[in-house]
Amino acid sequence: MATVSLLSDEQLTPEARAVFDDIRAVRGAEFVNNFWRALAHDPALLRATWERLKVVMAPGALDPLVKEMLYVAVSASNGCEYCAHSHTASARAKGMTPEMYGELLAVLGMANQTNALASALQVPVDDAFKE
Amino acid sequence: MATVSLLSDEQLTPEARAVFDDIRAVRGAEFVNNFWRALAHDPALLRATWERLKVVMAPGALDPLVKEMLYVAVSASNGCEYCAHSHTASARAKGMTPEMYGELLAVLGMANQTNALASALQVPVDDAFKE
Amino acid sequence: MATVSLLSDEQLTPEARAVFDDIRAVRGAEFVNNFWRALAHDPALLRATWERLKVVMAPGALDPLVKEMLYVAVSASNGCEYCAHSHTASARAKGMTPEMYGELLAVLGMANQTNALASALQVPVDDAFKE
Amino acid sequence: MATVSLLSDEQLTPEARAVFDDIRAVRGAEFVNNFWRALAHDPALLRATWERLKVVMAPGALDPLVKEMLYVAVSASNGCEYCAHSHTASARAKGMTPEMYGELLAVLGMANQTNALASALQVPVDDAFKE
Amino acid sequence: MATVSLLSDEQLTPEARAVFDDIRAVRGAEFVNNFWRALAHDPALLRATWERLKVVMAPGALDPLVKEMLYVAVSASNGCEYCAHSHTASARAKGMTPEMYGELLAVLGMANQTNALASALQVPVDDAFKE
Amino acid sequence: MATVSLLSDEQLTPEARAVFDDIRAVRGAEFVNNFWRALAHDPALLRATWERLKVVMAPGALDPLVKEMLYVAVSASNGCEYCAHSHTASARAKGMTPEMYGELLAVLGMANQTNALASALQVPVDDAFKE
Repeated sequence: MATVSLLSDEQLTPEARAVFDDIRAVRGAEFVNNFWRALAHDPALLRATWERLKVVMAPGALDPLVKEMLYVAVSASNGCEYCAHSHTASARAKGMTPEMYGELLAVLGMANQTNALASALQVPVDDAFKE
Repeated sequence: MATVSLLSDEQLTPEARAVFDDIRAVRGAEFVNNFWRALAHDPALLRATWERLKVVMAPGALDPLVKEMLYVAVSASNGCEYCAHSHTASARAKGMTPEMYGELLAVLGMANQTNALASALQVPVDDAFKE
Repeated sequence: MATVSLLSDEQLTPEARAVFDDIRAVRGAEFVNNFWRALAHDPALLRATWERLKVVMAPGALDPLVKEMLYVAVSASNGCEYCAHSHTASARAKGMTPEMYGELLAVLGMANQTNALASALQVPVDDAFKE
Repeated sequence: MATVSLLSDEQLTPEARAVFDDIRAVRGAEFVNNFWRALAHDPALLRATWERLKVVMAPGALDPLVKEMLYVAVSASNGCEYCAHSHTASARAKGMTPEMYGELLAVLGMANQTNALASALQVPVDDAFKE
Repeated sequence: MATVSLLSDEQLTPEARAVFDDIRAVRGAEFVNNFWRALAHDPALLRATWERLKVVMAPGALDPLVKEMLYVAVSASNGCEYCAHSHTASARAKGMTPEMYGELLAVLGMANQTNALASALQVPVDDAFKE
Repeated sequence: MATVSLLSDEQLTPEARAVFDDIRAVRGAEFVNNFWRALAHDPALLRATWERLKVVMAPGALDPLVKEMLYVAVSASNGCEYCAHSHTASARAKGMTPEMYGELLAVLGMANQTNALASALQVPVDDAFKE
């Protein structure tokens, strides 16, 4: 039902296969999800996307769970079905509890509400907020 | 430049004034930003929005800084100028360092990128991600 | 500050001028707003947009004020600064009171909030809602 | 297929059950749709969302059908599948005829079209539209 | 699963039938896709949409394949499932190769990424970019 | 007015300076626009964004002008003021004529219109469009 077929491991080019090997190594899991199987038709795009994702989601000044929750919030605001599912699952795997998820949803709802109000009212930015 | 005038303290109805008093008490600051001054034309909407925001952004399973960063991420994805400014300022006031902001931006950019790719490709949700 | 210059009446091609004449006749006003002055660089696009808008916004099963409020709600959800301003002004000209605007904002905020929640949760559509 | 299970009446906590009772009482119907069954995992979020929705959608300066049509327009602009279905069904239950729906769709399409044009052209707001 | 039934040829009004005849003539194909079958409930909206689409997508200063790829990019950014599928199919029918599609996806992802960054940072427009 | 200061050349770290040098070399111009001056606070994010953009926008199966027009269309749909300005300027620098821009706007408007209609109607994808 994607706009391209989802490639099985056997259908991968060697370049795509190398990316899949790295995904498996970094995640410590055999499972490679459909997003990568769709992107694998273009090995250069697959590689660039994975290499960047690996860096961005690694521990840093923010911990990986916070990063994953940010990803969920953005994905829901954008209405991306696949992304909402995959990143909610990832956030849970990284320790998101039902209480944390409930609060994430509350902030998400509130932000979308006040974003719409501010856009409708076209509120001018306070001088105090300007850099 | 808003679609309504921004009300000064002197122009507030008693009901709106009571909400402003609470904003000041909760925040421990005299400053009340333009968003509330625009909403104050409709005291019931002002009150409902503030009362809910106060609950949603309070400490809980997620700490207030994480909540504020979620708010920034959603606001930027929605392209809300006012909200990007006000919530970035709030996140900084709650301790967001330049390093944390840089990582938030990186996750935000990545999420919007892969959301668009998943939407273009219409990737079907993996069974493993379904509840 | 637009990506094109805003054409004055003197700069219009005859085809664009004819559209401006019709805008003035239909609205019964001399004022032609900037949106049309930007579109006037492409008279065919100008004409097609105006001709369709004229039909869509005319009285029908919905009255023009309801149509204008729908326009405001969509424009705010999309974060369009120009459109929020111009259609809020039009709605007022057609009779939108402060009370009506307050309720429109409340519905707008609520809809954006629950849209985000439904997208985050990926709630499946009830059979009862299917045609 | 939601990111959480849909709770049956038997699975509700007492607090969530009380909200469901109120939904049934207000609507005068036994049916409680999936959105609430997903939210019920977080009774506080369920209650806050329902209590606000009840107030916002009640008759006021705008009649409930106009409010429901505003909801449909926002939901469609945001691309929310669940919301498009549920609020279109609600609008019909409140009296939206096929003619009204057709005009709503026409305004929705027009607004999204001109929003995009104004954003592409970055048309500056006319002084006449400023408050 | 649409919010309206999809009309078969037998269910069309004469006005809707005339539009279907023109769709078939212009495309040189018997197949009429579901979008038109849903719109056909409102023959005036059906006609206006088709007549405009026919003009907009015709060869001009941009070739039809470029126009179709622009359509795919917008549809994916908007998260429109139906549109992503239908316009990707159309683009392929007009000659979009896998290499072209891969590059389109790369630009789409990049644009959504930098759009989000510019919105988060609220970067002021350089004087050099102003008309 | 950005959420961060715009760094002058003198304020750059050596790593950021190296990226600016490459931007200037690739573009054959001294001018470095504000987007990069805002991103330069985080040299790693600056580098990653620039390195990827350089690859994505290079000539390939699609020519650079088509890529730039795709960028404009996405930016306008997302309502990004900065991006609409900067990429429209880039498209013109790469040869976009007023006629091409007019057609791009027409497709952009049409796509946003039919995206909204398809989302409102929740049209099911035709089997013929499935991969």
